[in-house]
Amino acid sequence: MFTNYILDVSEGLITLVIYDITEDDVRLRVARFLRAKGLTRIQKSAFIGSLTVSARKDVENGVSKLIYGKKANVQIYPLTPASYSQRVVLGVELRYDDQDRLIA
Amino acid sequence: MFTNYILDVSEGLITLVIYDITEDDVRLRVARFLRAKGLTRIQKSAFIGSLTVSARKDVENGVSKLIYGKKANVQIYPLTPASYSQRVVLGVELRYDDQDRLIA
Repeated sequence: MFTNYILDVSEGLITLVIYDITEDDVRLRVARFLRAKGLTRIQKSAFIGSLTVSARKDVENGVSKLIYGKKANVQIYPLTPASYSQRVVLGVELRYDDQDRLIA
Repeated sequence: MFTNYILDVSEGLITLVIYDITEDDVRLRVARFLRAKGLTRIQKSAFIGSLTVSARKDVENGVSKLIYGKKANVQIYPLTPASYSQRVVLGVELRYDDQDRLIA
């Protein structure tokens, strides 16, 4: 078990974004957008972060536009601090560069 | 927005499992294991379901064994019914066959 990020759960809405996007360029654009919104990558296709209500709405709207008409599925979950702290992380930390390539 | 599954949130622990697994055969084995445990696939690398405390422990232990020593990261989040019902699902439903191939 490991923690590769520190999340301030004292304010804002803890938000988990998971995605399944078939086209590489669309997936890359969504990853960059989520990072730009202040979310932290926790897996190749998952980001998490603490967002204000309006930032969360921005994320929803921005992602909607980026995946419009594409073979893509994005799911956004609000988490309670308890849900977040009770998560279980198994395996190793996998990190990616800005081209979504695994850093070995 | 769509719902491709019905989740009984009245009992058990709502459990979201997301994974990032580099080897195809390991990923396939984890997907089959999660399905066998009664979870429902919601994305290529995400399953959800309502589990008893002991079933949740079984999932953690089983996944740990399947990914031992592999380049893999699996995260298991307990969700409250409110978190689950407030999730936002964007895009289209993507479905996979038992070989993890996208069903067009």
